[in-house]
Amino acid sequence: MLIVQKFGGSSVADNERVLRVAKRITDTYRQGNKVVAVLSAQGDTTDDLYEKAYSVNPNASKRELAMLLSTGEQQSVALMSMAIHGLGYPAVSLTGIQAGIYSSSAHENARIRRIEPGRIQTELDKNNIVLIAGFQGVNRYGDITTLGRGASDTTAAAIAAVLGADLCEIYTDVEGVYTADPRVVKNARKIGELSFDEMLELASLGAKVLATRSVEMAKKYHVKLVVRSSFTDAPGTEIKEECKVENTFISGLAVDKDVASISLIGLRDRPGIAFRIFSLLAKERISVDIILQSIGRDNTKDISFTVAKSDLKQALAALETAKNAIGFTDITHNAGIAKLSVVGAGMASNPGVASKMFEALSDAGINIMMISTSEIKISVLIDAHDADRAANAVHDRFFMENEFEFAEKF
Amino acid sequence: MLIVQKFGGSSVADNERVLRVAKRITDTYRQGNKVVAVLSAQGDTTDDLYEKAYSVNPNASKRELAMLLSTGEQQSVALMSMAIHGLGYPAVSLTGIQAGIYSSSAHENARIRRIEPGRIQTELDKNNIVLIAGFQGVNRYGDITTLGRGASDTTAAAIAAVLGADLCEIYTDVEGVYTADPRVVKNARKIGELSFDEMLELASLGAKVLATRSVEMAKKYHVKLVVRSSFTDAPGTEIKEECKVENTFISGLAVDKDVASISLIGLRDRPGIAFRIFSLLAKERISVDIILQSIGRDNTKDISFTVAKSDLKQALAALETAKNAIGFTDITHNAGIAKLSVVGAGMASNPGVASKMFEALSDAGINIMMISTSEIKISVLIDAHDADRAANAVHDRFFMENEFEFAEKF
Repeated sequence: MLIVQKFGGSSVADNERVLRVAKRITDTYRQGNKVVAVLSAQGDTTDDLYEKAYSVNPNASKRELAMLLSTGEQQSVALMSMAIHGLGYPAVSLTGIQAGIYSSSAHENARIRRIEPGRIQTELDKNNIVLIAGFQGVNRYGDITTLGRGASDTTAAAIAAVLGADLCEIYTDVEGVYTADPRVVKNARKIGELSFDEMLELASLGAKVLATRSVEMAKKYHVKLVVRSSFTDAPGTEIKEECKVENTFISGLAVDKDVASISLIGLRDRPGIAFRIFSLLAKERISVDIILQSIGRDNTKDISFTVAKSDLKQALAALETAKNAIGFTDITHNAGIAKLSVVGAGMASNPGVASKMFEALSDAGINIMMISTSEIKISVLIDAHDADRAANAVHDRFFMENEFEFAEKF
Repeated sequence: MLIVQKFGGSSVADNERVLRVAKRITDTYRQGNKVVAVLSAQGDTTDDLYEKAYSVNPNASKRELAMLLSTGEQQSVALMSMAIHGLGYPAVSLTGIQAGIYSSSAHENARIRRIEPGRIQTELDKNNIVLIAGFQGVNRYGDITTLGRGASDTTAAAIAAVLGADLCEIYTDVEGVYTADPRVVKNARKIGELSFDEMLELASLGAKVLATRSVEMAKKYHVKLVVRSSFTDAPGTEIKEECKVENTFISGLAVDKDVASISLIGLRDRPGIAFRIFSLLAKERISVDIILQSIGRDNTKDISFTVAKSDLKQALAALETAKNAIGFTDITHNAGIAKLSVVGAGMASNPGVASKMFEALSDAGINIMMISTSEIKISVLIDAHDADRAANAVHDRFFMENEFEFAEKF
């Protein structure tokens, strides 16, 4: 089998962990598999480098930041290669450039455009374990780019796709994908299997265990993903095309606190107004999530939507500048909110999921500000202060009560 | 003017120094010059990375060491670029690969084979200050190589050569080239001008202020070198084709303690014996310095020579293995020695330099083990314990007494 493994920063944070991961990689290799491993920077390295950069120049350019930050992953793969050599196995480390990871030209949050796997394949043919620096690529000018948060997952999935790997294992510091964040929801439990679509919804909704783009990539190229712990031998969560039907019709719950809402008040009711607003934001590369349009007074309407907290300032500035072109009377925003979502493929065929969720929130005395639904998810915006309590209330209503019902059948 | 500047690790050790160097680089740029700066890794970075490597694997491979160590210089150039941006000037950082520095394939102590200055030239044409990671190159397999000790000097000189630069400034933590190491010889003084040949002899003899290969490169391509301090505005030492005749006929003195001697005893006196010994060592990539051949007893001879201390073990092993093929009865070695040399273009036309040196050593009661001379230098091997005392005695005999003679003329 050809297996691509990805290890996050906490999995390689110190020498002891590097050696433990080296052991895991060589165990896989020893069983007759070809292995490619994608590594993140060690522990706090990236944060330390950021700090160093900003202390030299608080407005450090993205090109130079990419140049600086990419050294963290390069150090990781070199050290891992040394550790594997120490265990008596052949290994070779590659930077993003050497691994042929070509990206878009933006220096930050660049997207993988294509992978030229020539060098990786050559090293695999030589029976080497191949270690690839995650999080980085090279653009058409030959400059180093960073692929944005969670990009090591994406690199792993993309490499698995291009090599036609049998399996892509994402090693992390938790044992798999959970029905909710275990740090927030005390009754959260590990999910055995998930479909790509369910995982996509969970990932995009703020379940940080796996980057959205890595799931998109795996889905598109039919690569089976497994999320598991680098610290235990527990089986983890499988993410694949089709899953056997599980007992619950929702598979998980996610809380996203990195969200802010913007409302435009008193828009003239004319065609194309929504297009104007959202194409403006798209031009600024600001992603918009939940959108709510409501009838205002005097033949006007209001539009509310959410953006990432980090984009709020830029979004407000862009909208203010275009105030006359768009034509609104007032603009308000709220950064003190959170998005709570439940996800599940079984949801579409189970009416009453939404009302069950709203009931749980109502019973807990939590106010809902906005609602958005799709085939396999329901999201609500609530006050950020209520987020953890809301997550526990909704999670328990779905999972603990199902268990109870399930137990009653026997 | 096109000026190449090189800053060593101590010059960029912390934020404050990075900003000071940024100031110096932009001052040069602001005066209307095009500037390329080659940087070493910050302070102890390289040592820290070595330590990290060896704690993971005491026999870390050279390929992976190069991969790891090269990140130090990459971080330096990225941070410097950010600092220069902060001062309001345009700058761009380049790795060895990006700067087109192609080296031999050895991963350690690789030699620069050629420089493809396309990217550097493009950035200079855009009026950017160009910052290049020293100490590193890329071999024909696309792997990162390190160029060995002092290689940032060499990179700077090579880039200056290939760009046809007007000047190559080597910034360091001393004010220039001294008549002897000021930490050892209390009366050492800064030399104003030196010829390439004199500097070459001084550098190869252990005056660590400038790497030998950088001087060779500058001489070959007629690049004027200036060695000066990054901490003061003192003028430094100029190294160029022709120097005005100075008052003294020796220009400097150097002590090298990284030296060990090996003696092969009872060699059969047949043709080609020296060739056998030294081609064997050349194959092991061990450089041999002073060679002394003497008549032994019974139609045999002895050969003694010196190697770098770090090569001693390997040299002894290689010679032992080839004992029968070479044909010697005994092998001895001494790692407790030092090489003391005086250098000067005026020496050839001034007989009596050697005897003056020997007299100074004799007066100080220091025994000479081996002697080697050339047109512009005299080296002696002495006991390592005597090295510093010998350096002071010889230095004072040449420099202090000349001054006295000189003063007498008035």
